[in-house]
Amino acid sequence: MDKTAAYARLSELAGKGFDFAAALTGGRVRQALVPLGGGLTYSWAAKAVDGPVLEALQALSDEQELTGKYRALCEGEVMNTGEGRMVLHHLLRGQLGKPVIRKGKNLGEFYRGELDRLCAFAEGVRSRAIRGSTGKAFTTAVQIGIGGSDLGPRALYLALAQAGGTQPLTAKFISNVDPDDASQVIASCNLEETLFILVSKSGTTQETLANEIFVQDKLKKARLDPSKHFVAVTSETSPLAHNPAYLDSFYIDDFIGGRYSSTSAVGGLVLSLTVGPAAFRELLAGAHEADRAALEPKILANAALLDALIGVWERNFLGYPATAILPYSQALSRFPAHLQQLDMESNGKRVNREGRPVSYATGPVVFGEPGTNGQHSFYQLLHQGTDIVPLQFVGFAESRRGDDVEVEGSVSQTKLTANLAAQIVAFAKGRKDPNGNKEFPGGRPSSLIYGPRLTARALGALLAHFENKVMFQGFLWNLNSFDQEGVQLGKVLTKQVLAAASAGDGSGDAALDAYSSLLVRS
Amino acid sequence: MDKTAAYARLSELAGKGFDFAAALTGGRVRQALVPLGGGLTYSWAAKAVDGPVLEALQALSDEQELTGKYRALCEGEVMNTGEGRMVLHHLLRGQLGKPVIRKGKNLGEFYRGELDRLCAFAEGVRSRAIRGSTGKAFTTAVQIGIGGSDLGPRALYLALAQAGGTQPLTAKFISNVDPDDASQVIASCNLEETLFILVSKSGTTQETLANEIFVQDKLKKARLDPSKHFVAVTSETSPLAHNPAYLDSFYIDDFIGGRYSSTSAVGGLVLSLTVGPAAFRELLAGAHEADRAALEPKILANAALLDALIGVWERNFLGYPATAILPYSQALSRFPAHLQQLDMESNGKRVNREGRPVSYATGPVVFGEPGTNGQHSFYQLLHQGTDIVPLQFVGFAESRRGDDVEVEGSVSQTKLTANLAAQIVAFAKGRKDPNGNKEFPGGRPSSLIYGPRLTARALGALLAHFENKVMFQGFLWNLNSFDQEGVQLGKVLTKQVLAAASAGDGSGDAALDAYSSLLVRS
Repeated sequence: MDKTAAYARLSELAGKGFDFAAALTGGRVRQALVPLGGGLTYSWAAKAVDGPVLEALQALSDEQELTGKYRALCEGEVMNTGEGRMVLHHLLRGQLGKPVIRKGKNLGEFYRGELDRLCAFAEGVRSRAIRGSTGKAFTTAVQIGIGGSDLGPRALYLALAQAGGTQPLTAKFISNVDPDDASQVIASCNLEETLFILVSKSGTTQETLANEIFVQDKLKKARLDPSKHFVAVTSETSPLAHNPAYLDSFYIDDFIGGRYSSTSAVGGLVLSLTVGPAAFRELLAGAHEADRAALEPKILANAALLDALIGVWERNFLGYPATAILPYSQALSRFPAHLQQLDMESNGKRVNREGRPVSYATGPVVFGEPGTNGQHSFYQLLHQGTDIVPLQFVGFAESRRGDDVEVEGSVSQTKLTANLAAQIVAFAKGRKDPNGNKEFPGGRPSSLIYGPRLTARALGALLAHFENKVMFQGFLWNLNSFDQEGVQLGKVLTKQVLAAASAGDGSGDAALDAYSSLLVRS
Repeated sequence: MDKTAAYARLSELAGKGFDFAAALTGGRVRQALVPLGGGLTYSWAAKAVDGPVLEALQALSDEQELTGKYRALCEGEVMNTGEGRMVLHHLLRGQLGKPVIRKGKNLGEFYRGELDRLCAFAEGVRSRAIRGSTGKAFTTAVQIGIGGSDLGPRALYLALAQAGGTQPLTAKFISNVDPDDASQVIASCNLEETLFILVSKSGTTQETLANEIFVQDKLKKARLDPSKHFVAVTSETSPLAHNPAYLDSFYIDDFIGGRYSSTSAVGGLVLSLTVGPAAFRELLAGAHEADRAALEPKILANAALLDALIGVWERNFLGYPATAILPYSQALSRFPAHLQQLDMESNGKRVNREGRPVSYATGPVVFGEPGTNGQHSFYQLLHQGTDIVPLQFVGFAESRRGDDVEVEGSVSQTKLTANLAAQIVAFAKGRKDPNGNKEFPGGRPSSLIYGPRLTARALGALLAHFENKVMFQGFLWNLNSFDQEGVQLGKVLTKQVLAAASAGDGSGDAALDAYSSLLVRS
């Protein structure tokens, strides 16, 4: 990236500063809008970009051929180079370009087939045709998975379940290897009526397999047949595949990365069971709309691309090390945790695709909580701290549930959006005050994604927007955004500790042994 | 801070680097330990500090008279200078030094009196002597509050409720002004058996009052008497005080800041109702132990002080802009969100106590999720990102619930602690590899707080440790850690938007009006 002409131009422009108070007019707010898909719009009015910066960002995008790389990815180019894999999560949502055929198999058809199978299975459970081992209908689905098999599905479930109304099943989640996690969830379930969804692409995830055995043990103690209470979501090459220990199995493959798997069976099964196959298909349609919108080469007409480029402008040229995701929607309470994984695991890397250390900063720290809650928590630092943290707001005109009350001339939903509008302007423009402690420096950039209501379609578009933003940033930084070698060393050392503990032996590292003995069970 | 001799010395030492692989021996791990209170220990072995750095940090602590300032704070000096208030949350847990008398009132006695009252009330509810308006016993307590009235109490409740066993009441929380939050919680409650705890020190918090009316409306529609289902936690000068609209009221005062109020009635009432007054008193005892330990002037014998100084070393001399809190305990799932508020709202400030801009970085960005979940999410960036993020691990030898299963030669709790030990060493020492993508640079510092088990006493000590750490850092940076002027501008602009909306008029800022119209209800 730092060898391009646009990079040099951006470095020059970064020194010029940006006057938010003068720039942020009503006209700019009404014009700086890009449709994103799913009925959502991306607003960049409160970002520190003017004409020359946008021109240079367009040039950077063109020089780096960002939308061309995206198109190639969709058509099956091996973009996860280290692992020699294609990257096909977009194909879960619909076809973009040529079909992807591998060893004679049309992968789009394979994904659609699994989608149809899981929807049919979900309908079977929801209609009480498929039941537990004692003949009782299922009322709870418990997803057992970690990382990408947990955060995305959980965030989406919380968002969609928020809609109200009655559904035949509710969802719970077990992820941590901490036995308290499984124990507490199991204690809250009626096991006779509970269906467990075991999710591990490789079928070898330590936490997930430990939790599977934890749960099977409880089922056996309750005299229930585990094979009638378990389904698996895995790859066809995993030990979990085609296994009579499970009522049914649904498949993904190596071209669907964990943190990009929410729109596969990994997210689709639990969502179809609990909020219904129709809502899940709506979510896929919204994601596909955002995926199509991201093909546009003009940055002012491509929200994901523009968001990515502005993020790189803030990270590499303005020098901001973190970014906050702030949804003004309680339904999105765990969406920031999913985006934290998506972004930090994809682009938190220090070597490029060629394996050489990069000479520029890559992925930022990502964190966030819903507004207005965050306003009463960490916003103090965002407004008046010594570092600037760029912000990504999300908001909707209407609430999910439509259940509201008027207090002092406005309903709560209006108070929520009023707070959101006020925060954007407060961060950007600040306020002078002779008392330094009451002064707001302003100059704190933010974007806003907004829409009429958080529907399943809007949620799908929102998810895909951030996936595509992260992908474009990976292209810009010349990273492989689709592997996660940084998680391996911890796994290796954990195995050493556990092997040493069973053998009553040392692990080969004295510090490791000393830490283990501090933490050992008494 | 930057005028001290120790500052100059530390600036000089910062250039020297630190060789983790050589320094982190078994002997150092066993020796670099400081008792913290509540049965917990602080381990600093994997921090980038050697003898000369520790000497200079001790000199900085002495020059800045950190423990002297703490003692003065406890004895009633006005440390919240802008607001002219004392800072007395330590006194909620026990007496440290001279009694604090104000206008003839012994404030320690006042706090103890309110504690006794709330415990008696909680016993009354738990024993079914105090009941709802239809005579049914209460089975659910719903806390309505935001920020400090929500995050700390919620984090502590989740930790203690995790213990298992049956209790007469469970807790839920309503915080956001988003009507979906209250609507969803109410939909899950049997209102006849629900007691609402309204928490607002000032009695004027917009979100909390809107949610109060939301809930009262639901109670009235269910033909229940709201005054028999509501208690208030507030200050005696608030409109909520001594108000017949509530079954009872419990008081704090202006010397208990919101984010420091978890050990007052703000956290105490909901905890006493749900996990019992005895557990809450244990938590206070643990906090008091940590408070006492923090009086020690020798940094190697004062965990909170040492933790604070190392944090400043990392922020101001090594230049790290963020820090992650990583509890290896599912029970602490929301503890990082509480610490995020505690730290970022206390020290995210750019002017000193004299109202002048500081010339050094202050509070860092704080974020975190429980391990092992985080390992499958953002740890990639922590291990291999281009920025270094110092880490704060927490772990326990035993699980909360003692419900576990053995898989492949170890129980889940052992896997959990093995992962924790492995991560510390992996971050510190890294691993060389000819493939750059598989190389771990190491040199990523971490601390560890550990103990035998997360009891109520340990939890109290953990909470107080971080409160005291943040306080010492505020002293070092010469900040007022006890106000939050940075939240005011948003409130002012929100009122402008809402007033303009009712008047059908402009707010006086064209950008604000334009954002409001993007987000307006259709």
